[in-house]
Amino acid sequence: MNVLKNKVSVSLIQLAGSTPDKLHNLKHAHDLIAKCMEKYPKTQVIVLPECYNSPYAVDKFREYSEVVEIKESSPSVYQMSNWAKYFKIVLVGGSIPELDPKSNKVYNTCIVFDANGKILNKHRKAHLFDIDIPNGITFQESATLSGGTQITIVDTELPKRDSTVGQKEFKFGVGICYDMRFPELAMISSRKGCSCMIYPSAFNTVTGPLHWHLLARSRSIDNEIYTILCSPARSSDKSVYQAYGHSLVCSPMGEILCEAKEGEEILNCELDPEAINKARVSIPINFQRRFDMYPDVSTNK
Amino acid sequence: MNVLKNKVSVSLIQLAGSTPDKLHNLKHAHDLIAKCMEKYPKTQVIVLPECYNSPYAVDKFREYSEVVEIKESSPSVYQMSNWAKYFKIVLVGGSIPELDPKSNKVYNTCIVFDANGKILNKHRKAHLFDIDIPNGITFQESATLSGGTQITIVDTELPKRDSTVGQKEFKFGVGICYDMRFPELAMISSRKGCSCMIYPSAFNTVTGPLHWHLLARSRSIDNEIYTILCSPARSSDKSVYQAYGHSLVCSPMGEILCEAKEGEEILNCELDPEAINKARVSIPINFQRRFDMYPDVSTNK
Repeated sequence: MNVLKNKVSVSLIQLAGSTPDKLHNLKHAHDLIAKCMEKYPKTQVIVLPECYNSPYAVDKFREYSEVVEIKESSPSVYQMSNWAKYFKIVLVGGSIPELDPKSNKVYNTCIVFDANGKILNKHRKAHLFDIDIPNGITFQESATLSGGTQITIVDTELPKRDSTVGQKEFKFGVGICYDMRFPELAMISSRKGCSCMIYPSAFNTVTGPLHWHLLARSRSIDNEIYTILCSPARSSDKSVYQAYGHSLVCSPMGEILCEAKEGEEILNCELDPEAINKARVSIPINFQRRFDMYPDVSTNK
Repeated sequence: MNVLKNKVSVSLIQLAGSTPDKLHNLKHAHDLIAKCMEKYPKTQVIVLPECYNSPYAVDKFREYSEVVEIKESSPSVYQMSNWAKYFKIVLVGGSIPELDPKSNKVYNTCIVFDANGKILNKHRKAHLFDIDIPNGITFQESATLSGGTQITIVDTELPKRDSTVGQKEFKFGVGICYDMRFPELAMISSRKGCSCMIYPSAFNTVTGPLHWHLLARSRSIDNEIYTILCSPARSSDKSVYQAYGHSLVCSPMGEILCEAKEGEEILNCELDPEAINKARVSIPINFQRRFDMYPDVSTNK
């Protein structure tokens, strides 16, 4: 059983913290994607960080929100579609505040585009970031955001980059940041055939050092999949939310394959079917689960 | 919501690797428990390592197996009961090969005794250690062992050690070694009110450095509970199974509170209700789970 059929070249763009100027943020994201494609032309999938087009602040989400449609009235969605098409990449568009025009609710949403610029799927952050660590950090997304209700799996064809033959497929699960604290998303996605979890994220300088690597590595080894975390860079402006940085790719055996520092940085990494295969043959947990003793979270609902 | 009502003084005995002489192994365990109680007289719970009375070898389990009954014909069970009673401790009796006289099957079983020497519960290792890491380690417990079918939770009164007032209760889940790779046991136990998972274990020098700390820390932070791993010491005899050592206690926030080295060693650690409380108030994942999106593994079977 191997859920990944081909190597996948993934780039993570640890963008500088977003400014109050949305169009500037979008231009900056575009420029870094262009730089990434120049540096790593084989890139097939690009991942952006959480909330890359807007300040990460509870009182700003509605103001920066957009309806998810490929129209110029939704500039972030419109531009992401163009980038995906122009650079011929699958784009995991970090996240942006989304306005649902029917309910008037605002979500923290990751939109995924195929290499033709079409929307493949979107993930609305399901577990909102409401924490209160004394002398640490307090944040309450639920004050202005609503939580999504769906587990999000993307199954897509990859753009061809060279003469490699064989199937060019990539099936992955998407969560956003705090979602990664809830193991069920990765358990369900991997059991439904995903080879990777991708979490656009923005941990902070309190929870980052405590749990960032631990959570990524744990989601990987419990499911023998790749885990990708893409964070904004640390901001030099101490008055705004301080993202942790340290974007990374973790192997199915729990090794950190590549990791950014705190500043703006582009990472590239190849996901390898052989690594998944080797993990699953060596430590065959995927065949050893005891669903006679406990339910399989991936099949009961 | 706090699942732990009082502090608990736990000692872990990282016994030297067991010899082929069962009575010697039992005598040695007794001597170390006595030493532990001398050094840490407030100890209320003692944890022993996996397979401490028998060589850890597939072809030896049946030969060393005992029926779980407090009779002299089952010397390990009989002596453990005596130790618990004599030292007035809750004893998490590592594991021993168990013979089920009805089915004639052999299990890898952890028996838990209360401070009166009564058997509170037993856990039969559910996920058997069948792995095959090329150039690493190959082991196949299922060649001679059967897997248990029950999730094991122990809810017990603790012996009084000082003038501390209040309830003296301790509810914990038990798994054995490879069981810890399957997150469901800890998820279910913690959701049913356990404040701690205890895994008598014997990782090896290949999987230990890769995943030992990672798994303990992950079970802790995903459930905001304590995790205890108790291993045998590394053997100096290279011809036998090389246990990893590194017995440890991990906090609900994923910090390693105490950790043994590779040799024989006694650890003592206090589990603190306040640490659970603080974790759960700070990062309230236990109230934020989305059982509208995925089933709760603790309630569906």
